[in-house]
Amino acid sequence: MSPASSTKFNARLKASFKGWHRPTGGLGLAAASWLALGQPAFAQVSPEVAHIFNTFSFLVCGALVMFMAAGFAMLEAGLVRSKNVATILLKNIALYSVAGILFYLIGYALMYPADAWITGAQILGFASGGAPYNPGDIAAPDLETGYSVSSDWFFQMVFVATAASVVSGTIAERTKLWSFMIFVVVLTGFIYPIQGSWTWGGGWLADMGFSDFAGSTIVHSVGGWAALVGALMVGPRLGKFSGRKINALPGHSMPLATLGTFILWLGWFGFNGGSQLALGSAADATAMSIVFVNTNMAAAAGVVAAMITAQLWFGKVDLTMSLNGALAGLVSITAGPDVSTPLLAMIIGGIGGALCVASVVFLERLRIDDVVGAISVHLVCGIWGTLAVGIFNPKVALDVQIIGILAIGAFVSICSWVAWSLINLVVGLRVSPEEETSGLDEAEIGLQAYPEFGKNSF
Amino acid sequence: MSPASSTKFNARLKASFKGWHRPTGGLGLAAASWLALGQPAFAQVSPEVAHIFNTFSFLVCGALVMFMAAGFAMLEAGLVRSKNVATILLKNIALYSVAGILFYLIGYALMYPADAWITGAQILGFASGGAPYNPGDIAAPDLETGYSVSSDWFFQMVFVATAASVVSGTIAERTKLWSFMIFVVVLTGFIYPIQGSWTWGGGWLADMGFSDFAGSTIVHSVGGWAALVGALMVGPRLGKFSGRKINALPGHSMPLATLGTFILWLGWFGFNGGSQLALGSAADATAMSIVFVNTNMAAAAGVVAAMITAQLWFGKVDLTMSLNGALAGLVSITAGPDVSTPLLAMIIGGIGGALCVASVVFLERLRIDDVVGAISVHLVCGIWGTLAVGIFNPKVALDVQIIGILAIGAFVSICSWVAWSLINLVVGLRVSPEEETSGLDEAEIGLQAYPEFGKNSF
Amino acid sequence: MSPASSTKFNARLKASFKGWHRPTGGLGLAAASWLALGQPAFAQVSPEVAHIFNTFSFLVCGALVMFMAAGFAMLEAGLVRSKNVATILLKNIALYSVAGILFYLIGYALMYPADAWITGAQILGFASGGAPYNPGDIAAPDLETGYSVSSDWFFQMVFVATAASVVSGTIAERTKLWSFMIFVVVLTGFIYPIQGSWTWGGGWLADMGFSDFAGSTIVHSVGGWAALVGALMVGPRLGKFSGRKINALPGHSMPLATLGTFILWLGWFGFNGGSQLALGSAADATAMSIVFVNTNMAAAAGVVAAMITAQLWFGKVDLTMSLNGALAGLVSITAGPDVSTPLLAMIIGGIGGALCVASVVFLERLRIDDVVGAISVHLVCGIWGTLAVGIFNPKVALDVQIIGILAIGAFVSICSWVAWSLINLVVGLRVSPEEETSGLDEAEIGLQAYPEFGKNSF
Repeated sequence: MSPASSTKFNARLKASFKGWHRPTGGLGLAAASWLALGQPAFAQVSPEVAHIFNTFSFLVCGALVMFMAAGFAMLEAGLVRSKNVATILLKNIALYSVAGILFYLIGYALMYPADAWITGAQILGFASGGAPYNPGDIAAPDLETGYSVSSDWFFQMVFVATAASVVSGTIAERTKLWSFMIFVVVLTGFIYPIQGSWTWGGGWLADMGFSDFAGSTIVHSVGGWAALVGALMVGPRLGKFSGRKINALPGHSMPLATLGTFILWLGWFGFNGGSQLALGSAADATAMSIVFVNTNMAAAAGVVAAMITAQLWFGKVDLTMSLNGALAGLVSITAGPDVSTPLLAMIIGGIGGALCVASVVFLERLRIDDVVGAISVHLVCGIWGTLAVGIFNPKVALDVQIIGILAIGAFVSICSWVAWSLINLVVGLRVSPEEETSGLDEAEIGLQAYPEFGKNSF
Repeated sequence: MSPASSTKFNARLKASFKGWHRPTGGLGLAAASWLALGQPAFAQVSPEVAHIFNTFSFLVCGALVMFMAAGFAMLEAGLVRSKNVATILLKNIALYSVAGILFYLIGYALMYPADAWITGAQILGFASGGAPYNPGDIAAPDLETGYSVSSDWFFQMVFVATAASVVSGTIAERTKLWSFMIFVVVLTGFIYPIQGSWTWGGGWLADMGFSDFAGSTIVHSVGGWAALVGALMVGPRLGKFSGRKINALPGHSMPLATLGTFILWLGWFGFNGGSQLALGSAADATAMSIVFVNTNMAAAAGVVAAMITAQLWFGKVDLTMSLNGALAGLVSITAGPDVSTPLLAMIIGGIGGALCVASVVFLERLRIDDVVGAISVHLVCGIWGTLAVGIFNPKVALDVQIIGILAIGAFVSICSWVAWSLINLVVGLRVSPEEETSGLDEAEIGLQAYPEFGKNSF
Repeated sequence: MSPASSTKFNARLKASFKGWHRPTGGLGLAAASWLALGQPAFAQVSPEVAHIFNTFSFLVCGALVMFMAAGFAMLEAGLVRSKNVATILLKNIALYSVAGILFYLIGYALMYPADAWITGAQILGFASGGAPYNPGDIAAPDLETGYSVSSDWFFQMVFVATAASVVSGTIAERTKLWSFMIFVVVLTGFIYPIQGSWTWGGGWLADMGFSDFAGSTIVHSVGGWAALVGALMVGPRLGKFSGRKINALPGHSMPLATLGTFILWLGWFGFNGGSQLALGSAADATAMSIVFVNTNMAAAAGVVAAMITAQLWFGKVDLTMSLNGALAGLVSITAGPDVSTPLLAMIIGGIGGALCVASVVFLERLRIDDVVGAISVHLVCGIWGTLAVGIFNPKVALDVQIIGILAIGAFVSICSWVAWSLINLVVGLRVSPEEETSGLDEAEIGLQAYPEFGKNSF
């Protein structure tokens, strides 16, 4: 594939990614038109300035999304019991690391086959024999795409980690460390990028018009499906269900869970805002601003809806439910934060918050043990948010949204089932009952998260 | 009001908000002048580029301020006893959510009546029947204001939440959850925006020349007055004062309090830096840089001053005092970080830090129970910082600063007293002594923050 | 020195700082060339726009580096025992504050003697009698340097604090608070800026071609040497070494340590990315993007390498080792994130991660008690990263890198030894054995970090 045609293909990808957004366009083209005298008075961003804006936006937003890894770590640590805290922390920092490495080695090329070629010199620099990058050079792809391809890669990479983060929480407190890490390799190196290529990589779902702005389905429900299959395969924690009774196994630290939620909320501005994929025009800056506002309002409505739902249903407000309400609102708006009014964002987020509470209760009745509520937040609300775009946005067909949800759901579920099954066969998924009772920290890493607190610490 | 006149009004608002700063100006005007050939060599920012800079600055700084909600949550959680931690966390995430919703539904229109009209199509999109925003369109207001109105709205919204965050800490450990939430509705929907309109909304205080760059008075002391009235109405915690004895009821986690302080310090760069309200010129970028430096130096001096004051007064350094010293320095510089030298910022912040220590001691002697020291930090230092602008800045009249402080203080105090009284009458402010003794977490939300630590956990 | 010649000198500094990067250049020059008609189609960033980009990049990246102070505080707090937590928190917020004040009063002028003159009006504003800065004015230095000098100062200042943060962790749990604070004054006011002037200040190491992009040696190993000397002088903690036995004194909270690591990882994007020192061209934006990617990949490889090393060596994965692996990878890449391919960054970071594990073990065998592993992370990997640039970058001489490492190491070690010795002589370094046993929190600040948890809390 020649650079020219691949760039053109790339532009299409971006167009489809952003729905009906006009991408900033290749610099070659833009430079030509900018230098021409016919531009309107407002079209006054030179190609190089647009390049810097686009690139810096990827970096700043990408850094915020990277910090979501800390948010997931704190949220999940807060919602497990103290005997499993160190292990969940280790899983979280390890999965973020492995996701980046796998996406670098394999995933990115699978997800963006066209870009994998044109960015070879810069991103896949090892293919050039490891020659050090020569600063000051602007790689040819950068001139054509209108942004630094490294900045785009960074932004895409942190998304993969998010999908993997969803899984660790659901199956916490009973899954083996290394078994989980193997699954992360499969998820981030293969499952995520293959389904991602269908839409963001310019594949068949993009051709059909499937619309998922920042990944309600492509990121969050992918993690959610993998988590659901994992939860079914690994089974509930000891003591969670005794006969018909459902026992609460409360998380050990509400401050950590709350901190994690706030960090995720912060990171989501990068997650959704950066998914505009451009900042090189006033239209892009305006669109990003609208995304910020809608993201915030959906989360706010999710909190309030979860509080009210819990008050009416259980007679008291619940902190964990409220935190998950925020995340539910965020996941719900992620498919379409660019095309909502703030009021619509609040409606979508609020429904997400209430749905999440109901889903948590429903999954427990189904005897599915999701330690942190990640299936309810990321899968259920991911589906809801993707449907909402089809319902409220007249330019998006609801049936195409449903096809996308089902196709991705089926693919991820089946692949996850195969992967979990093979891992189970070879190394086993679950620690022994003795190890689970004494805690994964002691069994898996020989460390206490709080050696001075809790039972018999001193 | 026609768009043109309202835009003009808007420009005045911004001018008054920024003191004697020249605003970036409307794009229509700027585009005309930019296209003319007579501009000096340095005046080379096109209107569209300035629009992107201004907008992105609002978004990045706004995200930092949003994160201050997490800072307040961690600070307050760390400074309460463990039996009240989950409730204070819930209050914090709920107040941030409610503040945004109320500011959207009511507050913004009260605070910026002119903007409420011109931004109707975009921000108050629900007024247009909920039609989805059409990406790619640049709304007319954006062309005129020089930034995306959504980004400005986002930045203004996070400030409201800050004011509300101040209140929750002072009256923690004894106030009912839902009573507090009702007050947040009143504060963020009515009290804050009405007094805010007097200055930032272009009202009578702006006309008089009252100068409060980022809100020492308009944000922090507003929260502080509301907190003071609340503390007087709800009364001290059980066991705080026994006869003439003042008992320390130490916060349960110093790491959380310290983390919260650091997060607030970080967020303050957005709070003060973003209050430049523009980044579309080298002069704005330089001004923002000076604001960053002064903000940091005031906080640093606040820490050192609080440490030294405590060492000299009590014979030992105190961590909580030092943390509050940082916040005291930050609040103190907030009224004038744009017009100080770093040395002056250190003097202002250092005086704030010492003042805060004295105020904490003084309030305890007055039998006012402020759990986290928020009155000392936000009200006392908010007043000091606002006075400091009148003292050190020859362009600002000290008597006008005093008028502003008194007017806002009287308005907020009276409104808060009415609001707290009505809430007390209808639903009650305070939990029962039994509930307070067993802790709000058990009484209000039936949840323990740390089910495995502390007394009889296992 | 005339402004003109000092500006020229300044440009050389920046050139040497950035290796063979072409600096954005003075605005006067750039404006002239930009207004000429001969520029290529891509060279379309006006001097004022470049100024804004450069400045905003310093501010955003600087804020991220500032947040590293919180990361160090949480990491160190997590890795000490609960009886010393409040003291280490106080040390961290105090050292950040003191570092800024000292760098303002003395350090910056020592490190950048040329800039100290030209920035006098703005940064050292107190020299002008404390006259308030007049917003709207653009100081002459800003026009010449291509960025706001205040933003550059802010960015340099947060680096000083990082060096000081390294020290506090190593000598925690037995060093007196005020003795440590005096050392911070010496380190940040004198030792750090003097050695920094040799390279970044345009001194003899810069002339020789010593290359240290963001400070593997100049920041991290400086902190590391000071920590090593401090550890040798203050001696190991009571109970760490009993005869030939090495006792683990495990940190009290893994969530805090993990949170701190994630915050540091986030902040490192600012630390390394901002060290490009410019964002005013597509080449700079591309370089910054490459720095972001390499920074992330080195850290990711450091985590994985530390996990694998620990698994093979000790038969189990260790969380603390994995966290230090991330930091080791980050320190290792800091000397050359601009000239690596991602694969090379992974190799450099991975070796750093493994090296760190080995170093932790080795130092314990040498009876050197480093509470948090900071010597292994910052000194050992700082040396490794600086050597790696000489090994892998054909444009940098390995022997010059070695000379730089040795010269800075010798200078910092000797100065630190003198400083620690004098402090020991005058006020003493170490608390009494009784105070150490009861904990520094009780002895030094009369406060418990967790009054309700742990032994005899209630």
